[in-house]
Amino acid sequence: MKASILTVGKEILIGSITNTNSKYISDKLTDMGIEVNRQVSVDDNLDEIVNELKYLKKSSDLIVISGGLGPTNDDITKEAVAKFLNRKIYLDEDEKEKMIDRFTKFGRTMTPNNLKQVMLIEGSEKIENKWGVALGESIEFDNKRIILLPGPPDEMEPMLDYYLANKSFTNENIIIKSIDIIGLGESVIEDRIRKMSFESNNVSINTFAHGTYTEVKIIGKDTKKEELQFSIEKVVKSLYAEFNAHIYSENNDDVSGEIVKILRKNNLKISFAESITGGMLSSAITDISGASKVMETSFVTYSNDSKNKNLNVSKNTLDKFGAISENTAFEMAKGIKEKSKADIGVSTTGEAGPNSSETEVGNVYTCIYFSDDNYYTKHYFFSGDRNKIRRSTVNRVLSQILFVLRKNFKE
Amino acid sequence: MKASILTVGKEILIGSITNTNSKYISDKLTDMGIEVNRQVSVDDNLDEIVNELKYLKKSSDLIVISGGLGPTNDDITKEAVAKFLNRKIYLDEDEKEKMIDRFTKFGRTMTPNNLKQVMLIEGSEKIENKWGVALGESIEFDNKRIILLPGPPDEMEPMLDYYLANKSFTNENIIIKSIDIIGLGESVIEDRIRKMSFESNNVSINTFAHGTYTEVKIIGKDTKKEELQFSIEKVVKSLYAEFNAHIYSENNDDVSGEIVKILRKNNLKISFAESITGGMLSSAITDISGASKVMETSFVTYSNDSKNKNLNVSKNTLDKFGAISENTAFEMAKGIKEKSKADIGVSTTGEAGPNSSETEVGNVYTCIYFSDDNYYTKHYFFSGDRNKIRRSTVNRVLSQILFVLRKNFKE
Repeated sequence: MKASILTVGKEILIGSITNTNSKYISDKLTDMGIEVNRQVSVDDNLDEIVNELKYLKKSSDLIVISGGLGPTNDDITKEAVAKFLNRKIYLDEDEKEKMIDRFTKFGRTMTPNNLKQVMLIEGSEKIENKWGVALGESIEFDNKRIILLPGPPDEMEPMLDYYLANKSFTNENIIIKSIDIIGLGESVIEDRIRKMSFESNNVSINTFAHGTYTEVKIIGKDTKKEELQFSIEKVVKSLYAEFNAHIYSENNDDVSGEIVKILRKNNLKISFAESITGGMLSSAITDISGASKVMETSFVTYSNDSKNKNLNVSKNTLDKFGAISENTAFEMAKGIKEKSKADIGVSTTGEAGPNSSETEVGNVYTCIYFSDDNYYTKHYFFSGDRNKIRRSTVNRVLSQILFVLRKNFKE
Repeated sequence: MKASILTVGKEILIGSITNTNSKYISDKLTDMGIEVNRQVSVDDNLDEIVNELKYLKKSSDLIVISGGLGPTNDDITKEAVAKFLNRKIYLDEDEKEKMIDRFTKFGRTMTPNNLKQVMLIEGSEKIENKWGVALGESIEFDNKRIILLPGPPDEMEPMLDYYLANKSFTNENIIIKSIDIIGLGESVIEDRIRKMSFESNNVSINTFAHGTYTEVKIIGKDTKKEELQFSIEKVVKSLYAEFNAHIYSENNDDVSGEIVKILRKNNLKISFAESITGGMLSSAITDISGASKVMETSFVTYSNDSKNKNLNVSKNTLDKFGAISENTAFEMAKGIKEKSKADIGVSTTGEAGPNSSETEVGNVYTCIYFSDDNYYTKHYFFSGDRNKIRRSTVNRVLSQILFVLRKNFKE
């Protein structure tokens, strides 16, 4: 089954927003075994949309459209779809009542334009919108299907999830598996997979760097179900043999989330002493609901003076080895652990640039400290600009923390 | 002049990456007065690309293509463009020499596949790649133009900038202006602009929320240059009259960058005491090159105990008013200022959810503290999930810091 995604809106075409909807929809459809062969964005223009639909129809069994369902005069996606299908639009009386109730409740005045958002195309299946106002709909035509959704991602995403749950659009046998790897860079992983030389024609293997982890995505398609299952299992087994302890998930689980989960399960507290990452590690952990159970205090110590006063990094170490050194990273991690009375102290120190100081731009030291007998220092060298070096540091440290936690504690 | 953007790659279609290239290219072309009427993504498939080019040609004077210029067999964008144009591909001998030098220097083995990346289409203008290997090119045909660029954003973006610098593709009179507003929400700004009711047909005004600030983008097109200039000036003047002190830039300047600039110019140091934002504010400031001159220390104090011990927030305040209160925000900001010996202390405390604790989810207090006679506390109520509430807090606080700095110090 082949699908196209059509996103509508001037804000996309003038480059004011990044089109996250196309990615989200593509991801969901791919996971259902549907082949997305085209993503298109056009302006809020009736003829443009109708022409695009005529073109997409030739190559697609399914067209998912988002955007242009708002109350303003610019929003004409629904009218365009109705014109393309040569069908009428009608007012959904139930939804109109609900809308009147809502406006009354909030003391707002309803305009005729608002009613546009609760109109439907003849013969469509309504997709309810619990996250906003504009209805979605699914419309069958000529053995094909159009799914129409609003543009705001916080409405579109749950509406699509809700609609697709328990639906199946294809009869092919499709098996998709993700193997998620931490503690190794994408290029290393890719290289090792290439050398494994799998031979199945019905299975494709791709790697995708997600920052903190690398996803190995295995997509299998075959008319024969059992052969396909056998091929997939063989691939998965070989990957486990190759990457063993580096595999932490098969569900694209968030690395920060996994860290918080293991810490909570083992009743542990973590604290960060950040220099080069300047708060990014703490913020990655506090991003997770329940973080207050595992982190009480973290310090951003940017200057030498601050490292000394707040973390007890000795002046001797700073003078002798420099702020960007394994020794300083070690003392920072030990210092924050003791100062915050946490079980684990994690530190980062490095040169993000653009100008090199005591050391070359891209030079980074980190330490994960449990005790003087149990700590992990690492030296990295990252390329790229300031932002990329800081981001790489955060990703590799989070990946490393999870790797170390999985080694030392139960999940 | 009308343009289309074609991005090529399986990773886009299966939803593994967000297509930032289309946004970047759209943004650049729009700023040059070029109307982007279509963004399309297709797979690395020769026929698909050729067919898409035939279709795009009908509606576009300019087609910008990115992706599929790598060394692997999957990468066939150049071959597809050559086929579409019915032209040959040849090896650029200069670039071949450079490539051999590079491979020798790094001690790597060059494969015949690598040479693909330094081949060009007959009659094209070469676009050099100082950030990677694959060459770009610009090709004229039938009074139209194709620009071909590699897919990795850290190569594509500077190559496009470099190529477009000092180029002009259109004869229409186009004036684009941005007015950047801080300290007010987008909906408030939009509402006030709507009430101003501008009447020029040749000028369009749109607002775009960029997180820390809202951009009011004025796009004017007219055959008569002077009338257009007059209209634009009138709009800009009215906007300054309406939003005065809230306007901080006309260049989409980064708010964090502006904060660091003012702090450096006035020789000031800032420190953060973060609870709800958990390190995000510190990381936004340390993101800016030169941040070490203006920030030495920041604390993430997540627990009450940590707020008390590290920031001297009194137990009485925490008991009586709670951790999420104006009083706590004030004492946190004062505490970090004194502890770090900075000139300005900034605090955040709030409930990001998902479960409400002592207060409702979305409740946030912040304080910008200079002295007991000069401080700014704010109470916000944000909707959305954990991530959105934290992000909104960071955006509004940064916006507020810049607003306050501009009021108190010289830029």
